[in-house]
Amino acid sequence: MEKSRRSFWTWGYVADEPSEVQRQAAAKAAYERTGIAVEPPPIPAIADIKLRKPRLAVPSFLSQFVTSEKVDRITHTYGGHSLELLRAIRGTFDEPPDAVAYPETESQLEQVLEWCVSNDFTTIPYGGGTSVVWGLNVPQDATRAVSIDLERMNQILEVDEVSRAANFQAGILGPSLEAQLKARGLTLRHYPQSFPWSTVGGWVATRSGGHYATNHTHIDDFVESIRMLSPAGWYESRRLPGSGAGPSPDRMVIGSEGTLGIISSVWLRLQKRPVFRASAGVLFDDWMRGTEAVRAIVQTKLYPANLRILDPVEARNAAGVRGNQALLIIGFESADLPQRLQIEQAVAVARVHGGVVHDDDVVVDDGTGQATGRGGSVGAWRNAFIGVNAGVQLGLGVLSDTFETAITWDRWPTFDATIRHEVGKALQEALGDAAALSCRFTHVYPDGPAPYYSFSGPVALGQEQEAWQHIKDIANQTVVAAGGTITHHHAVGRMHKEAWEQQRPELFGAMLRSLKQSLDPRNNLNPGVLIDSC
Amino acid sequence: MEKSRRSFWTWGYVADEPSEVQRQAAAKAAYERTGIAVEPPPIPAIADIKLRKPRLAVPSFLSQFVTSEKVDRITHTYGGHSLELLRAIRGTFDEPPDAVAYPETESQLEQVLEWCVSNDFTTIPYGGGTSVVWGLNVPQDATRAVSIDLERMNQILEVDEVSRAANFQAGILGPSLEAQLKARGLTLRHYPQSFPWSTVGGWVATRSGGHYATNHTHIDDFVESIRMLSPAGWYESRRLPGSGAGPSPDRMVIGSEGTLGIISSVWLRLQKRPVFRASAGVLFDDWMRGTEAVRAIVQTKLYPANLRILDPVEARNAAGVRGNQALLIIGFESADLPQRLQIEQAVAVARVHGGVVHDDDVVVDDGTGQATGRGGSVGAWRNAFIGVNAGVQLGLGVLSDTFETAITWDRWPTFDATIRHEVGKALQEALGDAAALSCRFTHVYPDGPAPYYSFSGPVALGQEQEAWQHIKDIANQTVVAAGGTITHHHAVGRMHKEAWEQQRPELFGAMLRSLKQSLDPRNNLNPGVLIDSC
Repeated sequence: MEKSRRSFWTWGYVADEPSEVQRQAAAKAAYERTGIAVEPPPIPAIADIKLRKPRLAVPSFLSQFVTSEKVDRITHTYGGHSLELLRAIRGTFDEPPDAVAYPETESQLEQVLEWCVSNDFTTIPYGGGTSVVWGLNVPQDATRAVSIDLERMNQILEVDEVSRAANFQAGILGPSLEAQLKARGLTLRHYPQSFPWSTVGGWVATRSGGHYATNHTHIDDFVESIRMLSPAGWYESRRLPGSGAGPSPDRMVIGSEGTLGIISSVWLRLQKRPVFRASAGVLFDDWMRGTEAVRAIVQTKLYPANLRILDPVEARNAAGVRGNQALLIIGFESADLPQRLQIEQAVAVARVHGGVVHDDDVVVDDGTGQATGRGGSVGAWRNAFIGVNAGVQLGLGVLSDTFETAITWDRWPTFDATIRHEVGKALQEALGDAAALSCRFTHVYPDGPAPYYSFSGPVALGQEQEAWQHIKDIANQTVVAAGGTITHHHAVGRMHKEAWEQQRPELFGAMLRSLKQSLDPRNNLNPGVLIDSC
Repeated sequence: MEKSRRSFWTWGYVADEPSEVQRQAAAKAAYERTGIAVEPPPIPAIADIKLRKPRLAVPSFLSQFVTSEKVDRITHTYGGHSLELLRAIRGTFDEPPDAVAYPETESQLEQVLEWCVSNDFTTIPYGGGTSVVWGLNVPQDATRAVSIDLERMNQILEVDEVSRAANFQAGILGPSLEAQLKARGLTLRHYPQSFPWSTVGGWVATRSGGHYATNHTHIDDFVESIRMLSPAGWYESRRLPGSGAGPSPDRMVIGSEGTLGIISSVWLRLQKRPVFRASAGVLFDDWMRGTEAVRAIVQTKLYPANLRILDPVEARNAAGVRGNQALLIIGFESADLPQRLQIEQAVAVARVHGGVVHDDDVVVDDGTGQATGRGGSVGAWRNAFIGVNAGVQLGLGVLSDTFETAITWDRWPTFDATIRHEVGKALQEALGDAAALSCRFTHVYPDGPAPYYSFSGPVALGQEQEAWQHIKDIANQTVVAAGGTITHHHAVGRMHKEAWEQQRPELFGAMLRSLKQSLDPRNNLNPGVLIDSC
């Protein structure tokens, strides 16, 4: 059934694994940074990995789509965080699921969930496996655990071209979805960095952030309705363009991260494929002035599709900007209308705030497919920005990770200074003077930005976990103490659970537990994610 | 403390009551329609209204702001639905609250809620009293009931001009809020029809629909954070521009209609006051073609502030359009940027779909305060549309009401035909051949419109309730059976509870009950609203 086997040490499938050539090149780049030569660690053979025996037996009536094969258990032990993948590449698989299910139909989904619940198994909904927040691991205290992988429930069930919406099975991957929509002139245009390997169900369960930098940023904004199987039964919301009837049933499920049920299918709003485009890269001598320009543009409510600013470190690394300049990328797109005036209006606002862009570097495609303008830094940035490969840098003596948040504009300058000071200090302590910290905005709201921080630095082999934990603890504490959200679009999982407790209303934990009690009374689904096991 | 006493037979205060002259004029208009001369019913004197004795005694430590005065109990017996006001004007007050509280501080709010809960009183949060869905009445089976009116908690606590947001106490009324923001060049621009008499807390509790016809339509879209007192304690969400951390704590409260707690204050996103404006009124010979134009415009994502179409009946009555034409009102506004191109783009799309508007009738104000263009039907419509007076038509032999919904575009033509057929039949049965049914869109989404139906017709005095119930039953059944939502922005209350049960996920009732159990374990808050008492 599978088009390819999942990789156990990178995002996606075996075909997505980096080559030895790529890993050697990465090792060379790491050496240039750290001064310590490290060979890429060998990839263990499946046969050499030691795995505890399954602690349950798959009954024959489920054996068509539930398996305890070693390779399936190995490939469902970890999500996509680099520390997990590092453990994988080092052959450590202490807590594999005891079985993996691949339901192809709702009937099979019902069968396997009923088997899990009636046997009180820990049950882990699995989409594309790209969680970076420890959202799909088997808890140490689980006595028996089953991972339910939705990859065979990957069809588009219905397309409504009039309303521009479609009903997707939860396990469909980004590229497959877009390829099928393309034939109808439609697109979802939701591109989290995990896009090639993550699923509609995963996006909804984790509140993923997508293509649009302004206005409709999260998958939340595209959901028309959700169909989900919980231990208490099916949960299906009505497909509506809007409603004001009571608290929203969808909003209870969006962000529930597999703790309430297994999402089976979702109606999502679509777009017509854009043919009119306009973009510009605007340079700022000062990072804070650049972010002021972003505020001014987003508050005009022009709603550009792209409005992402890179601080000078990121502008240099990702787009080849020389000097100490921040780079703001502004982009408009439309299926219906020319966007020339919109980009002119946005650029004019940016210039008022000190932004520099030559008129000839404003790129406009008035629907002909032939853009005018030179593009400048935008093209370089686009090429650098797309393409995450979570495997290539593993075990080379460089630790890198990201964290993202959102904060209102009034607090933003102090927030950024505090993060750079506190996390910078933690980086220095954990990774030394060569550590680097940088920032960009991935999404922007009229009342505040969603800053995305990246850090990296040399780390001694074997010290990755400890160094990372120190940095992460400080980052979590600082983000929450300074008024931010612990995550803007990476989800809570187990990684952010404690910090999230500090952030959310105190009574909210009890409310989530009561919701869970209604749908998952025996606490089988993803225990320990979002809330402590109850 | 009160600037004016609340009216017991119309929305708002005594000063808002229609005059005898207005009521006589309404009676004349009713006669012209029904052919039956009816005198406006006399307004009973407070002293002549019979009220049962209070079933509780206000303790002295609360007597500063809790009262069992007759006038307070009378003015808190009913919401704003015309059938309620009709009972009021006829002097019928069978189920008054036993006391009314007017807390001025959070400490007083705590005191009164604790008193209510510890004595197991039915407790009814009361904002502006404009509920049209029986959302604030004392249930017949309540043994003792207290209404908590937030009108003295009416301050703006903080304004953040940088992020464009402010923290409002829940009891602030629309006009007071706007007057204070105006001094700072800001505006909320949330104008439900109840705007002059309704409150921020009420808007959030009931998911009110506002000024913007597209994009951000409900108050939901403007909420940054909520502070609410529940019987289990304070519930306060963090003020953020966006977040992806778990299910949204705000979305549990938004639409909870007073069943989980009493909203004390809310941070809402604001706008700078618009100075650039552009609008046009476009005529269509065919209602369905007009709605197709609306679909085309909203799917371009130009996001006009106004995009409201009136069917020929409404176009004639509200804007003086002759002949059998639908009227589409398109409006753009901005604090920062000229909107001339936007209106031109929208008008061009409308014309492609058969819309007719003379170039000279497109009104553009490029920030000078001097608009160019003649305006045509838009001005007439604006004058007719604003100004609801719920008291003037009471008891004159005309029954009128509205219901609103939302439906995806693919189902819209059939939906409209079904509503007109089924509800039209019910109207004929209940009100006779002179009954009228009409429709406009109040809000529009890329995936579907929010149609708003109005009906009216002659009714025999004393038969109003029975006639209305027949029509309403059919309307509810038809809306839900045809795939719509039972309410787009009028809330659920008790009026829509049963129909809502048909619409929402079957498990959702249990989830709401479990949420309520967490925050209001003794079921004191607004029992019978949204869900059956538990």
